[in-house]
Amino acid sequence: MDFLEELGTLKKQVLIKDSFNIPEHFDNIVISGMGGSGIVGKLFSELYHSKPVICLDDYNVPDFVGENTVFIGISYSGNTEETISCTNQALKKGSHVFIVTSGGELSRMGKERVIIPSGLQPRSAIGYMLMPLLNTFLHLDAGKRDILSGLIEDVDLHHEEASKLGKEIALEKKIPVIYGFSPFRYVAYRWKTQFNENSKLMAVNNYFPELNHNDTMSLRDTYLKDDFFFITFGGSYGKISRRIDATEKVTSTRFFKVTPLGNDDLEKMFYLIHFGDYMSLETAISRGMDPRDVSSIEDLKKLIK
Amino acid sequence: MDFLEELGTLKKQVLIKDSFNIPEHFDNIVISGMGGSGIVGKLFSELYHSKPVICLDDYNVPDFVGENTVFIGISYSGNTEETISCTNQALKKGSHVFIVTSGGELSRMGKERVIIPSGLQPRSAIGYMLMPLLNTFLHLDAGKRDILSGLIEDVDLHHEEASKLGKEIALEKKIPVIYGFSPFRYVAYRWKTQFNENSKLMAVNNYFPELNHNDTMSLRDTYLKDDFFFITFGGSYGKISRRIDATEKVTSTRFFKVTPLGNDDLEKMFYLIHFGDYMSLETAISRGMDPRDVSSIEDLKKLIK
Repeated sequence: MDFLEELGTLKKQVLIKDSFNIPEHFDNIVISGMGGSGIVGKLFSELYHSKPVICLDDYNVPDFVGENTVFIGISYSGNTEETISCTNQALKKGSHVFIVTSGGELSRMGKERVIIPSGLQPRSAIGYMLMPLLNTFLHLDAGKRDILSGLIEDVDLHHEEASKLGKEIALEKKIPVIYGFSPFRYVAYRWKTQFNENSKLMAVNNYFPELNHNDTMSLRDTYLKDDFFFITFGGSYGKISRRIDATEKVTSTRFFKVTPLGNDDLEKMFYLIHFGDYMSLETAISRGMDPRDVSSIEDLKKLIK
Repeated sequence: MDFLEELGTLKKQVLIKDSFNIPEHFDNIVISGMGGSGIVGKLFSELYHSKPVICLDDYNVPDFVGENTVFIGISYSGNTEETISCTNQALKKGSHVFIVTSGGELSRMGKERVIIPSGLQPRSAIGYMLMPLLNTFLHLDAGKRDILSGLIEDVDLHHEEASKLGKEIALEKKIPVIYGFSPFRYVAYRWKTQFNENSKLMAVNNYFPELNHNDTMSLRDTYLKDDFFFITFGGSYGKISRRIDATEKVTSTRFFKVTPLGNDDLEKMFYLIHFGDYMSLETAISRGMDPRDVSSIEDLKKLIK
């Protein structure tokens, strides 16, 4: 399957209705995952606020993880060493362990598993991996999943702005700087990682209002500013929108604004994610890079075995 | 007080013995703070793992915050609007509210307050703000505080490597990229923000092993790579050190390694923080920038009032 076909599967991915039988009472949710799998927990943490959600992207679980923890291990391949390490630790501590994977070692671990289709790049399976969490904790129903699917299909059919932006970044040889804000902080991070993996390009992410306390101070006087292309999200977000406008004015910086379609945060999140997919794909194509190639990451995994 | 004098106060700051009377039982710790004050909660979250620690750098507290939450509001000025907003919300939800500030509105809020000396740049008061948390939750004693103070004084007396590095970055007109790892992820972030505020320079931070799942893919083929100066921390850190070496090899990238002095994570953390203070100061001086000037941030605050 080529990369464009992979992107075309997202509209089907969000229709899966799998969910977990979580315990009635628990203290916290701990989600372990790396890279294109780990982004799922991070995105979820911005949509669910009823319990503390701690996302792990390292080898170890914190001391507090125990019997009252809902632990979710997410790895598309099922063989990510950091996630296996955390899952083993959570099992030993007696946590309620749930798994999302397409196979590998993780598919034989935990109390309940959602096994998703294999054959995609992990970063292209974001719908398969995110939906079990949304179905479980946000109680998404079939109607809502249909709406998401339709919105994603719209992006498949109309991504001219995304492609134009992706091409412009490559042709002007710019490093993208993506400024997010809640609940789209991790959309900015997703875009950064898609530029990294798909386009083989360095990229930077950050978020309002925190960046107004430090980053902002550099934008007036830094050297090499013209090497960077600043992007943020458009729409009406109260104080944050005022901060975005003020940052542009005070630092004489132009931010390209991508305004999501969608009627709520979740819909806008998926719109922006898929926008970023097409944008980074076009940057890859314009640079003559294969968006599927992740040989550096594979070479590294071999070297640290 | 000039900026160099401010840096010289850190060795005294870490001697303060203030702490909070926290309840015997609580479910989670929520710390609200922005920028040079917010870094304190982030650094603490890497040293304390007995309960979930959630750091907020935005306007709102999550739904789960309640009577079993230990809430700590940290703002050097005491007038940071995001922190005041979160503190008000935590008070309404019946949390145990503790405050660290030098004055302002926050000094009249909460159940218990540590009032620290005013007159410094917030980012230079990191010791005053961090110690109450360490004293309370890690039970630091006078002996340990003396050791930290001595180590910091050593950096005051011998920061030639830091200054050389800071100067080199400025003279070669590079954008610093700082790659941290636990428990020094937020040291990397601190360095980034110090380059922003002190040196008026864009900077980038990231962390192992997560960056091996995305960033790594860009380092072989990105354009403009020579604009960046890559820094990480030296020493023996098992799998992480192997990952650092492998990343350099696979991507043909040289990382400058700063190896901390100190006998444990906390000591190394303070060493590295202070190293970054002197490094970013020298970058500022070499660029002819006033390290104390934060006029962009002040201009922005006025504009969004």
